[in-house]
Amino acid sequence: MPLLTRIRGPRDLDRLSLEELDQLAEEIRSFLVDAVSKTGGHLGPNLGVVELTIALHRVFESPKDKVLWDTGHQSYVHKLLTGRQDFSRLKMKGGLSGYPSQAESEHDVIENSHASTVLGWADGLAKANQILDRDDHVVAVIGDGALTGGMAWEALNNIADGDRPLVIVVNDNERSYAPTIGGLANHLATLRTTDGYERFLARTKEVLERTPVVGRPLYETLHGAKKGLKDFIAPQGMFEDLGLKYVGPIDGHDIEALESALARAKRFGGPVIVHCLTEKGRGYQPALQDEADRFHAVGKIHPDTGLPIATSGADWTSVFGQEMVELGKERDDIVAITAAMLQPVGLDKFAKAFPDRVYDVGIAEQHAAVSAAGLAAGGVHPVFAVYATFLNRAFDQVLMDVALHKCGVTFVLDRAGVTGTDGASHNGMWDMSILQVVPGLRLAAPRDADQVRAQLREAVEVEDAPTVVRFSKGAVGPAVPAVGRVGGMDVLRESGTDTPDVLLVSVGALAPMCLEIATLLDRQGITTTVVDPRWVKPVDEAMAPLAERHRVVVTVEDNSRVGGVGSAIAQALRDAGVDVPLRDFGIPPRFLDHASRAEVMAEIGLTAPDIARQVTGLVSKLDGKYGSTAAEVDSVESARD
Amino acid sequence: MPLLTRIRGPRDLDRLSLEELDQLAEEIRSFLVDAVSKTGGHLGPNLGVVELTIALHRVFESPKDKVLWDTGHQSYVHKLLTGRQDFSRLKMKGGLSGYPSQAESEHDVIENSHASTVLGWADGLAKANQILDRDDHVVAVIGDGALTGGMAWEALNNIADGDRPLVIVVNDNERSYAPTIGGLANHLATLRTTDGYERFLARTKEVLERTPVVGRPLYETLHGAKKGLKDFIAPQGMFEDLGLKYVGPIDGHDIEALESALARAKRFGGPVIVHCLTEKGRGYQPALQDEADRFHAVGKIHPDTGLPIATSGADWTSVFGQEMVELGKERDDIVAITAAMLQPVGLDKFAKAFPDRVYDVGIAEQHAAVSAAGLAAGGVHPVFAVYATFLNRAFDQVLMDVALHKCGVTFVLDRAGVTGTDGASHNGMWDMSILQVVPGLRLAAPRDADQVRAQLREAVEVEDAPTVVRFSKGAVGPAVPAVGRVGGMDVLRESGTDTPDVLLVSVGALAPMCLEIATLLDRQGITTTVVDPRWVKPVDEAMAPLAERHRVVVTVEDNSRVGGVGSAIAQALRDAGVDVPLRDFGIPPRFLDHASRAEVMAEIGLTAPDIARQVTGLVSKLDGKYGSTAAEVDSVESARD
Repeated sequence: MPLLTRIRGPRDLDRLSLEELDQLAEEIRSFLVDAVSKTGGHLGPNLGVVELTIALHRVFESPKDKVLWDTGHQSYVHKLLTGRQDFSRLKMKGGLSGYPSQAESEHDVIENSHASTVLGWADGLAKANQILDRDDHVVAVIGDGALTGGMAWEALNNIADGDRPLVIVVNDNERSYAPTIGGLANHLATLRTTDGYERFLARTKEVLERTPVVGRPLYETLHGAKKGLKDFIAPQGMFEDLGLKYVGPIDGHDIEALESALARAKRFGGPVIVHCLTEKGRGYQPALQDEADRFHAVGKIHPDTGLPIATSGADWTSVFGQEMVELGKERDDIVAITAAMLQPVGLDKFAKAFPDRVYDVGIAEQHAAVSAAGLAAGGVHPVFAVYATFLNRAFDQVLMDVALHKCGVTFVLDRAGVTGTDGASHNGMWDMSILQVVPGLRLAAPRDADQVRAQLREAVEVEDAPTVVRFSKGAVGPAVPAVGRVGGMDVLRESGTDTPDVLLVSVGALAPMCLEIATLLDRQGITTTVVDPRWVKPVDEAMAPLAERHRVVVTVEDNSRVGGVGSAIAQALRDAGVDVPLRDFGIPPRFLDHASRAEVMAEIGLTAPDIARQVTGLVSKLDGKYGSTAAEVDSVESARD
Repeated sequence: MPLLTRIRGPRDLDRLSLEELDQLAEEIRSFLVDAVSKTGGHLGPNLGVVELTIALHRVFESPKDKVLWDTGHQSYVHKLLTGRQDFSRLKMKGGLSGYPSQAESEHDVIENSHASTVLGWADGLAKANQILDRDDHVVAVIGDGALTGGMAWEALNNIADGDRPLVIVVNDNERSYAPTIGGLANHLATLRTTDGYERFLARTKEVLERTPVVGRPLYETLHGAKKGLKDFIAPQGMFEDLGLKYVGPIDGHDIEALESALARAKRFGGPVIVHCLTEKGRGYQPALQDEADRFHAVGKIHPDTGLPIATSGADWTSVFGQEMVELGKERDDIVAITAAMLQPVGLDKFAKAFPDRVYDVGIAEQHAAVSAAGLAAGGVHPVFAVYATFLNRAFDQVLMDVALHKCGVTFVLDRAGVTGTDGASHNGMWDMSILQVVPGLRLAAPRDADQVRAQLREAVEVEDAPTVVRFSKGAVGPAVPAVGRVGGMDVLRESGTDTPDVLLVSVGALAPMCLEIATLLDRQGITTTVVDPRWVKPVDEAMAPLAERHRVVVTVEDNSRVGGVGSAIAQALRDAGVDVPLRDFGIPPRFLDHASRAEVMAEIGLTAPDIARQVTGLVSKLDGKYGSTAAEVDSVESARD
């Protein structure tokens, strides 16, 4: 990598010739395939933006100018050009983040991984430049997929209203994860070729030139101000309809053309769209041959073949996906919805079996939820499968459209809880808190594959309220059998005594950990009942009487501690007048740095030994048995946050 | 009202002649001005849709066909035509809802008042029709203002992707509350007149006809397929760019033209937009002369003059609005943001004083929040003022864009708590729950006007985290002085003893009620400290030590009980190992029917006598003094939900 290794910052690009830039692009591609094969990561998107990133950093002066990336997983090349070339620990604890990171570099601005935000950020930054009278530039790169999100529309509408300098680069690869859907995608396709326009001009000219006397003047009348005519005739498109200057389409792999277009856009002095055509997975055959998602994000792979190195066992997603197919066979009225993530959320098999009963709405969680309300009101039962973190986008719609109207819609939340390596914004740690406030909503947290299947079936039976089934990322563990039942709750472990010390409430996938906690407590002579509520909202009516038979209640959940299942149970106990001390374990109220799930769980104290130690301290405080003081217990607990 | 009183349902319209329909329209306008003057309500929007609603119910067959209203405050005429003509108790307990209501009529579908949802509902209903093989029609009425919301875009993108029959009526009055902003508004203005297109055609024809020999063929070449040329030349607009058939613009007060356009659209068999031009406040001079919002929503008014009958004292909104002007004078870097509600949220004075530092982003709460993040990152301090219920739309942006990036953005939540007459979806009862989970966010609930001013000032000083100031709707009460301070909390009433019974935590505007509760408890011999935390998130560090000195902690908040301030304090006490019994009073987890605020508060038990009675029961249970049994107390408490 003779050129790449010499690039320490964007300005080092200035010295390179066009030939050298092309060579640099090749080096970067080789680097990406090699590096990401070893660590896993977002490969396809970054292979698509190599030349674009080079051109952006040649034309704009980061960090004075702000170069903004939507859905920052396309920022690897940007990292390479801004002094970050050690990808050996990509997405690992202490290594580079898989997204832009202000802590890593002054060249990074937007850190989160939720799509369609960049135009709003750009609008705000451009407004601040105007208020503070700065002449810095703002350039925002957004994929055609992300343009399907409502936030992008809201931002375009505002940007078009002003005259603040702002360059919007539409990175059009015809895909989000999968091919982009919707009217906008069709429109972009129209813009992609100006053939129609060129043919029209050619035909007109031909006709006119066959009329020697008056042809010329007419042609000139029509074409004298070519721009004027072009405005009328060309597929100028909705961007110019909105009042945004449009430049394009540009070959997104031609550095010279890109630089020329970007430089013009930079000089323009108002909002302008540069429409670049790129190829996701560019230059890497295994990616290009993968029609499903072009190696959007990969695990560790063989760099030559693109085949995964490790094959994992059954995962939560595929258990859900398979059961959806079974449900689809049994019930004609079940339909599925995805927000541009058919395969990642496991709906690909359902789509294959029932192509007329699946809707990909684009990166549009709000629309997924509100159209689900309409579907339910129309008499079918929609299942919207989505990453837990992305449902935050549709909170208002779940509340106001689905719940208020008592619609039978099932939300399936994948990647719930700590997901780890994708960093702060990918953790699904908010759903069990914010959904608590939604009247009538029922929320299931299945603990194993059997429960995913069973609770999904229970969920789709509910026709007068929203239901939620949330599960973790990755491999699903072995079955955790129930040894009894109290109310609607599964008892996973009996205490073995009539006067048990601890009621341990296990939420979802943490069941094995909770059983381990019980074993550890047992060694301290503390007797423990372990119960899995299965449906964590509403709190089971049997919970309060059960809690009253214990000396302490402990809840363990893979969700924010704030307002989560523990809080809900605590409130239910208060309402029942059961003032048994309760301690709630979960994710502390802060954003989590990227690291493996196990590392994150250890860091936040969500491990069996940590929790067992604290519960031991609490019990000993209650009976003074082990001489532990309240102060000691308190300091342990406050350290968690 | 000879005609109106004979209309018992939509089919009664079929018998009327065009002249009679015009007369009916006049009768309806008189009825609306007369009725809404007496009760208050949404006047301007309904005066604008009289003819449109008549035409819709003539052409479509509700309830088999679904006639959907976006932001249902434009449904009064629809109510009149579907058997609901008693407006005497509009928005009052037991009277008609100010929005569509499924409980009122089979002709109503969407009940909520949050804008931009109707196209998503329509998409869902049309999909259900297709799945279940029904030939029912779906027609959705959406204002140009609501089209600025991202949900509308997401829906248009999806609707355009299919070929399901669906009629979208754009009710274009160039306004949401105030004139609509943004690129879309400019584009609609272009569509409003086809003069440009007609002039172009006329000029071309003239030139061509001056060329006798070849003119005709060329003209025919160009115009032979007029539709084809029109596609090229006319301002066909973004709707057709997206693949949506466009019909319009139609005079929205010409019943015959409307019926013709709607009938064509109904026959079309695919998604089609009918662009209607209407005048908000049509036919009512006082409304038409009010440029600010055309009598969007009014209190009781004199029908002739439009002047308000009662003038209320200072309200929360104007206290905030005035202090913003003061802050604007002191700090150049403070900017204000509104989502199409400049006047209702009290930013009109700031806008007048600092027109370059206020941004109306349209009905686009997501963009308000994310562009605020960009503004803050760019070095200014944005204050986004919004109704509390509408912030739900921007939850993900508050979390991921503002909080994750440690941006100093201040959110001012107006109409927080029970608002009453506007019904379920207007109550601001979720904010203090869902915002609890946002790391770093600080939330203030000022109890009086002085505190609004003081806490707003404290909020805008925070530059590394989101801050929230939330207050009630309507008149602000007299000042509630502090008699002491504990940590950062104001003591509103000392218990007068070293061993007090109750720590009463008062949140925001409920301070007078809490002082009354304390007085009532005093009569029972129960000693009470009343404390106002001022900042309810994070929980003040002095709370746990203070709570430990009491026998019971009681929290009272004008917010959902679930996950609210009471839950947060309960968790803070648990974390500190303080297991004093706590009872949390707030809004039960269900949707609230429309009624006055006082009626709602009484119904849900948020009154001083109700709470005092329950606290008395709890204290007597603790010391057995009054012989009250646990069972009695429990039954009282569970009755709350």
